[in-house]
Amino acid sequence: MKKKIIPNLLAVADLHQIMLGSIAPRPIAFVSTIDSKGNQNLAPYSFFNAFSSNPPILVFSSNRRVDGNTTKDTLHNIQESMECVINVVSHSIVRQMMLCSVDFPHEMSEFKASGLTPTKASIVSAPLVKESPVSFECKVKEIITLGENGGAGHLIICHVECIHLEEDVLDENGRIDPHKIDLMGRMGRAFYVRASGDAVFAMPQTQTLPVVTYPNLPEHVRKSDILSANDIGYLAGLKYWPNLEEAHNEAMKIEEYSKLTAQERTIGKLHKMAKQYFLRQEFDKATVLLASI
Amino acid sequence: MKKKIIPNLLAVADLHQIMLGSIAPRPIAFVSTIDSKGNQNLAPYSFFNAFSSNPPILVFSSNRRVDGNTTKDTLHNIQESMECVINVVSHSIVRQMMLCSVDFPHEMSEFKASGLTPTKASIVSAPLVKESPVSFECKVKEIITLGENGGAGHLIICHVECIHLEEDVLDENGRIDPHKIDLMGRMGRAFYVRASGDAVFAMPQTQTLPVVTYPNLPEHVRKSDILSANDIGYLAGLKYWPNLEEAHNEAMKIEEYSKLTAQERTIGKLHKMAKQYFLRQEFDKATVLLASI
Repeated sequence: MKKKIIPNLLAVADLHQIMLGSIAPRPIAFVSTIDSKGNQNLAPYSFFNAFSSNPPILVFSSNRRVDGNTTKDTLHNIQESMECVINVVSHSIVRQMMLCSVDFPHEMSEFKASGLTPTKASIVSAPLVKESPVSFECKVKEIITLGENGGAGHLIICHVECIHLEEDVLDENGRIDPHKIDLMGRMGRAFYVRASGDAVFAMPQTQTLPVVTYPNLPEHVRKSDILSANDIGYLAGLKYWPNLEEAHNEAMKIEEYSKLTAQERTIGKLHKMAKQYFLRQEFDKATVLLASI
Repeated sequence: MKKKIIPNLLAVADLHQIMLGSIAPRPIAFVSTIDSKGNQNLAPYSFFNAFSSNPPILVFSSNRRVDGNTTKDTLHNIQESMECVINVVSHSIVRQMMLCSVDFPHEMSEFKASGLTPTKASIVSAPLVKESPVSFECKVKEIITLGENGGAGHLIICHVECIHLEEDVLDENGRIDPHKIDLMGRMGRAFYVRASGDAVFAMPQTQTLPVVTYPNLPEHVRKSDILSANDIGYLAGLKYWPNLEEAHNEAMKIEEYSKLTAQERTIGKLHKMAKQYFLRQEFDKATVLLASI
């Protein structure tokens, strides 16, 4: 059952939690700034993402606090300096990052409080976080105020001027390896996700036609109560559906299939066999079994 | 070693991959729109996030293609209608979502191609995705163009008018359970993260003072070569550091500690014992062992 919610009729804190719980996992901007006296500030924000690569634009929001409707040091410092460094958060520094979310007095540097190391940036005055694998030096192009009350965001539109990239997170082809960079994402409430290991997997999908699509799958596949929506979605996303002869010939290479008589090769039996191959991520075998029907 | 990269000096496609690989995991907006003739469109975008809860604002970007510098149906439809539905992507529909990223001709509905079900929204004309656990009906307030060349984004600023929330994803207190909603996040290249199961964990952190902070930890903790930055960060984030007597009394309840003579309770020995408790997530035991030194 779905519940219909009108945002205006809900307390801001409850609406906020629905948004945090359902718009996830969110990347974390670990933002360093300085004020006009040179005091350093460092704070994490998860209303953040990349929005353009040409020009390279990152956007984050420093929201007005729901309790008290006050704004944060990061926003004040950016209003003064119009620059910041956005550092990414790997698992290795997640606890130190969390410590930087505490409401320290303005004079207290979160670098000191957390033990993280500020290092000199190339273009902006705000420091890099040495322990972060990737830092983006940014000039702030514009700050768009989204509201005046507690919970209101500000779109802080950042143009990337210089990137510092740790070479240890690259694979042998010089591309970022998700397991090596080992990033943390923000979920609702106190939940985080560690985006590496078994939770991360590659799912290639052709972007160009031809593609089978759902209406062109055989009815026994579309109506299967053994296959999942993802199994069927995988088949619909293939470049082409194997013809019967080709599928049968390939299926004969699978011992479990070749041992069956023609009469034993029922739709139910073959769907159950295919399902086992889907579970083992042996997609080619699952496909030929279903296309042999 | 860190590599310094000046965005202007890099090919757009390479810069794009660095941004996708390091600004992650990204939440996915599965956006449904209609054109003036009523043709339905459905496409996934990972340059997306929430940015404000009061007013409730979501922002996503439909980028100009790096190859060919063309724009997408979603953007055209929104320019006409100034409305959309942003559906979230649970693991159960990830393959169907991927199929909707194929470059189909404008007349082809991605709902048909993927087998997903359009259902009538309450306020806007664009359809909800029935199979998505949470859908946000939005009026588009503004479209901000970030550039004119391939890879350029558009900030599509969406005001949430109505939310449809599947009750099956709520816990016993009516809050969204990350394991039940089972969301997918986008990483670089063909990688996705499934944000549920062991990859997701709660890390509570007090937001108010007092907090120990790094400089107030004993030197043997700050300089430990046995504890990780996260172990030390956890300790620095405690509300207070236990005093020696209190810590010793609590540590005496741990058999492994109580069996040691005073001489045997060396810094090295206790750090190694504490490390084992950190690995088992028995944080209280790790803390008292270290505070007993």
